[in-house]
Amino acid sequence: MSNQYIAKSRRLRSTIYSSRIENQGVTSYTIYNHMLLPAGFEGGLEETYEHLKNHVQVWDVAAERQIEIKGKDAYQLVQLMTCRDLSNAKDGKCYYCPIIDENGGMINDPVVLKFSDEKWWISIADSDVMLFAKGLAIGKKLEVSIFEPDVNIMAVQGPKAFNLLEKIFGKEILDLKFYNFKYFNFQSTQHLIARSGWSKQGGVEIYVENSKSGLELYDLLFEQGKEFNVKPGCPHLIERIEGALLSYGNDMDINDNPLECGLEKFVNLDTNIEFLGKDNLIKIKNSGIEKKLMGVKINLDKINLRSAINLTIDDKIIGEIRSAVFSPTFNKVIGIAMINKPYFTNKGNFDIFIDSKKYVGEICDIPFV
Amino acid sequence: MSNQYIAKSRRLRSTIYSSRIENQGVTSYTIYNHMLLPAGFEGGLEETYEHLKNHVQVWDVAAERQIEIKGKDAYQLVQLMTCRDLSNAKDGKCYYCPIIDENGGMINDPVVLKFSDEKWWISIADSDVMLFAKGLAIGKKLEVSIFEPDVNIMAVQGPKAFNLLEKIFGKEILDLKFYNFKYFNFQSTQHLIARSGWSKQGGVEIYVENSKSGLELYDLLFEQGKEFNVKPGCPHLIERIEGALLSYGNDMDINDNPLECGLEKFVNLDTNIEFLGKDNLIKIKNSGIEKKLMGVKINLDKINLRSAINLTIDDKIIGEIRSAVFSPTFNKVIGIAMINKPYFTNKGNFDIFIDSKKYVGEICDIPFV
Repeated sequence: MSNQYIAKSRRLRSTIYSSRIENQGVTSYTIYNHMLLPAGFEGGLEETYEHLKNHVQVWDVAAERQIEIKGKDAYQLVQLMTCRDLSNAKDGKCYYCPIIDENGGMINDPVVLKFSDEKWWISIADSDVMLFAKGLAIGKKLEVSIFEPDVNIMAVQGPKAFNLLEKIFGKEILDLKFYNFKYFNFQSTQHLIARSGWSKQGGVEIYVENSKSGLELYDLLFEQGKEFNVKPGCPHLIERIEGALLSYGNDMDINDNPLECGLEKFVNLDTNIEFLGKDNLIKIKNSGIEKKLMGVKINLDKINLRSAINLTIDDKIIGEIRSAVFSPTFNKVIGIAMINKPYFTNKGNFDIFIDSKKYVGEICDIPFV
Repeated sequence: MSNQYIAKSRRLRSTIYSSRIENQGVTSYTIYNHMLLPAGFEGGLEETYEHLKNHVQVWDVAAERQIEIKGKDAYQLVQLMTCRDLSNAKDGKCYYCPIIDENGGMINDPVVLKFSDEKWWISIADSDVMLFAKGLAIGKKLEVSIFEPDVNIMAVQGPKAFNLLEKIFGKEILDLKFYNFKYFNFQSTQHLIARSGWSKQGGVEIYVENSKSGLELYDLLFEQGKEFNVKPGCPHLIERIEGALLSYGNDMDINDNPLECGLEKFVNLDTNIEFLGKDNLIKIKNSGIEKKLMGVKINLDKINLRSAINLTIDDKIIGEIRSAVFSPTFNKVIGIAMINKPYFTNKGNFDIFIDSKKYVGEICDIPFV
């Protein structure tokens, strides 16, 4: 498979960290919310994976853009867009929320930050949620302002993340609970820090609003992190699939609903709250889903997946694999696949053809065990 | 400046042509509507430019996605989103339409295809217009269905485009007028062909709905095109800037309105039609715009622009350059810049600093002369 360079231009927005990571060995990019998101660093996939699992990394994830919803009707609009019950949401907390359309189709799966009833940030995956929110607000004449503030997140992830963070922010940072956020002082600038991040290795995301101070903090993290073997990094294909962290656009899209994506926990149908797609999701729940995101394991020692590939049993299509990688932990290829009824219940084996060669795999639950 | 590869995954959708162009020497990609859009081919920028201006190219522009608006209220919704008067739009014609929000900010600048009052395609630039349309339709309870049909455009562009097209479609294709579309027969499959394309060299765009037939057509274009020196290509940075074809996300975004973008021709304020942002645009028109897209010429023999760069006069910022390239025609760097009042009227010279070195440029009208 040939490799192509990414053609940079203003439309594919650089982040405040881009010039730094390009001096630190970034080798590939993806595009996320019209912005550069690093996808690989020198050393390669398995070396950076081992590093992430054992040390601490600083990630440029500025492409996780914020959509601010502000004003009298802010709660109403945010609730309208998600099937998760936010009526008891607390200030200073983060909520993973499927954003769905009138059919229940997935539009995004952001983390929502509640500042107050009248101010929310939607920390979005890769689709223009701002345009959906604007359309709804205009159509329903809601009193809100909707915009993308200039926030550039850097994540600090890995088992030594808090050793490093404590050196800079003091013991107070250790008390920050999972999916909570708070402002912390750094050289007389306040930075919003959330205990969150797109890995299972622990750490925080720093929502940088003051770029100058944020870049000083970025540099200090590398200086103070030497003793913890700090390196630049990015959301990691092996680690995220092993951890079954779903990726919007890869694992699911507008043709899938949250029940099919295994997100029942965040689909609150038994409440009085009003949200788009509710009636449809109730119907689907009652009649049962027709397909479901599952794990798969395949007897293969490498894969390079750029589109979905059909999975078959006796030449009959039973689903498609959407993300996959060779896992050092399982010593085979693992992946996320949308599996048709009844195969997501029966599980069992399937065939997959790659470059006209047949391989055998098995359907399994996620998280992987 | 270092180069990075693009990390492919399902989220950055491949097109039906991707495997072909990767065998035909594509060297770089950009991402457009969450899809791969070729950005460069073997031979480099100036060689492919000369080729486009003298021969014929076939482009994979499947990333120009279609949003279909269908149903009783389809016209109302399309008109609501654009400041261009579509009340007299004709079936079978294409319309370049700024899509704007309630403030008049640019959300997209698609070509809109009218099939009938109840069926339209919006051939979008790089933003999720589908989500905006869905939000509006839900909020206003419009009777429409809104979806992205599986259409994969290939463009045939260049001065010899019609020589090649005539060989395949016969003389009838020569009668197709600029910005008109019609279905043409190819091996008993109907293909929608529009006389349009993102170059000034002439040609068509083929809206492929039947992939199998479309790929046979793609291959035949190369076979039959040998005598015209056909090559694969893509929207071309030099050619499009020399032709002053604006690029949404590069030259303008939601912080700019169509009057500032020189699109007055498509802003129909003196009609009874209802569209978002109308009141605001009337106010802006009456008080006069504060900034305007202009051309610039700079005494430089190369540039690699990936973000906007400020333009100054005596250290005062007077605007920013957003797209730029070395032009073989003008033998200097030319670009598209957003220039503040009163400098877009006064024109004159400015300074620009690149890698801490000062260069001199001048503001000019577009199209460039």
